[in-house]
Amino acid sequence: MSTLEETIAAIRPLDESAIAEARARQDRMTKPRGSLGVLEDVSVKLAGLAGACPPELPEPAAVAVFASDHGVHAQGVTPWPQEVTAQMVYNFLAGGAVVNVFAAQVGARVTVVDIGVAADLEPVPGLLTYKVAPGTADMTQGPAMTPAQARQAVETGIRVAGELAASGARCLVAGDMGIANTTASAALISVFTGLGPDEVTGRGTGIDDAMLAHKVDVIGRALALHRPDPADPLGALAAVGGFEHGAIAGFILGGAAARLPVVLDGVIVGASALVAAALAPESIAGCLAGHRSVEPGHTAALRHLGLRPLIDLDLRLGEGTGAVLALPLVQSAARALRDVATFDSAGVTDKDVLETGQS
Amino acid sequence: MSTLEETIAAIRPLDESAIAEARARQDRMTKPRGSLGVLEDVSVKLAGLAGACPPELPEPAAVAVFASDHGVHAQGVTPWPQEVTAQMVYNFLAGGAVVNVFAAQVGARVTVVDIGVAADLEPVPGLLTYKVAPGTADMTQGPAMTPAQARQAVETGIRVAGELAASGARCLVAGDMGIANTTASAALISVFTGLGPDEVTGRGTGIDDAMLAHKVDVIGRALALHRPDPADPLGALAAVGGFEHGAIAGFILGGAAARLPVVLDGVIVGASALVAAALAPESIAGCLAGHRSVEPGHTAALRHLGLRPLIDLDLRLGEGTGAVLALPLVQSAARALRDVATFDSAGVTDKDVLETGQS
Repeated sequence: MSTLEETIAAIRPLDESAIAEARARQDRMTKPRGSLGVLEDVSVKLAGLAGACPPELPEPAAVAVFASDHGVHAQGVTPWPQEVTAQMVYNFLAGGAVVNVFAAQVGARVTVVDIGVAADLEPVPGLLTYKVAPGTADMTQGPAMTPAQARQAVETGIRVAGELAASGARCLVAGDMGIANTTASAALISVFTGLGPDEVTGRGTGIDDAMLAHKVDVIGRALALHRPDPADPLGALAAVGGFEHGAIAGFILGGAAARLPVVLDGVIVGASALVAAALAPESIAGCLAGHRSVEPGHTAALRHLGLRPLIDLDLRLGEGTGAVLALPLVQSAARALRDVATFDSAGVTDKDVLETGQS
Repeated sequence: MSTLEETIAAIRPLDESAIAEARARQDRMTKPRGSLGVLEDVSVKLAGLAGACPPELPEPAAVAVFASDHGVHAQGVTPWPQEVTAQMVYNFLAGGAVVNVFAAQVGARVTVVDIGVAADLEPVPGLLTYKVAPGTADMTQGPAMTPAQARQAVETGIRVAGELAASGARCLVAGDMGIANTTASAALISVFTGLGPDEVTGRGTGIDDAMLAHKVDVIGRALALHRPDPADPLGALAAVGGFEHGAIAGFILGGAAARLPVVLDGVIVGASALVAAALAPESIAGCLAGHRSVEPGHTAALRHLGLRPLIDLDLRLGEGTGAVLALPLVQSAARALRDVATFDSAGVTDKDVLETGQS
């Protein structure tokens, strides 16, 4: 078996016994039952993933920002020049981007992966040069990448997850950078959700009505050309995806195989998660949706994945920023399960013991 | 002038020049304009409050949990016995409650204020014994407190804010503990929003339909007895409030006078903020809504205050937990304004300079 097939074979469902133990412990903690809302579910998921209650705290967290360029940029789907992808990679490496600053606030480490930037980047500490090719091909003229490139992108993401796990990370965060990547994301989301391009395409980093209509048309033409099959995720990725989509899908698979939680970011990571889910549905069980972006395709992707976002603050930046902001919530949920006193241990009266069980 | 009047007189509007500077800086940062959504507004508010751009980071943060008991407990509005308030105070002081664990995760310090617990608490490090009385009186039989007690509660909250500021806190977090305090909160919210008790009363820590109907009836009877005037906030507080509501209102006023951001928690803090807003509308300008609780009265209070919650995860615990979870968001927003590179400094191409201004 190749790396991809081996990784998929290693992914197991959540541990039901740890899940039951976590739910029972939440009900003994000194708080009204259910009063931590969604964070109780987060803690239970982490226990199921770890196969232990309480689970290890999901820290330190490692953020991987997968940077790549897109041939569809030639179709005029964004006002930003392609060179900004490489410029932002240097900004990440200098610590000047938003993801760096948010990561500094919450104690996460940032790694940048050149998975397909259309420029020769200088080797700099913190940069992993795993370039598949200098940008994809234009999906409106032919497949964005070859089948071999699609597999290479996914297997590179698996490798990055493994390297970060080996370096001590106990929580993985997926981020992206790539001018025009909301176009490829919308195309993938259309393929996997069955929604039309007009329903899942947004304004990305900021485009006007005319460019939005053009973007929807470009995506529609690419889908009509390739007719990607959602049952063939690598084929769909090759047809209309980006190298970062493949790598992030692999990163999710690698995290799941290593039983580490993966915190997802916005629409690019959401589109990538659809690829991962199509390759191995169980890989999503250990994922947490960090936030909901304003991109309409992201909401569609989250619905398809069955994930509820932890943060919903009209962000639309990418880079992993929304996921990094959610890290303290994920970590707090786990820490509560580990450290909060129980009614018994703290000598606090439990109303549900006083009563006949009415909650 | 007394402490209350002096504090109100010291509250000034946000600094418009720092606000403009912060907005302009957000537009030069290496990200698409507006892409940080609500967090851009948070950073601008912090700049306006500090009167400087970038503002000082809002850390360290200090959480004050105001604990108190309620005479209306005698009306059977909750299944929890009153002794749980004191038991939970000891749990806070032992570090075993959820707020302690969340605060440990995000690096905040917790102080507990006995503002009216119906028990003699032993002096323990971390406990401020500023008891107004051992619990309020039953609001269905007469005023919950005297006018002098209402003033004392508010001025104690001002004092606590001042003490925490003097000890180095650069961000204040308000929390609560008190069995039956969602009943007093709903009464206050009804007074200040003009909504009926049935519209603002929720299930608190978990009650059934019959007890909810009874709780609405109890609140309605108290409001009919006192007919509190929202234009007389101390009078309304005395009629149907709790000592913690008064203290938290004072805490907000004290934070505003010291120009420190105050992060609000759930429905009890929301009700208290309505008292603060009625005393000094400008005091809310420096407040941030940490989260939205599932209590219907909290949504009504936030709407009345004009605040958008940062977190919305079906929490209903109190203690300051939802506000503590929001701290990394507030701190990240401020840090971004201070540390993110600008297009110029990072050598990143700005599309809005390339173009004619179309965003």
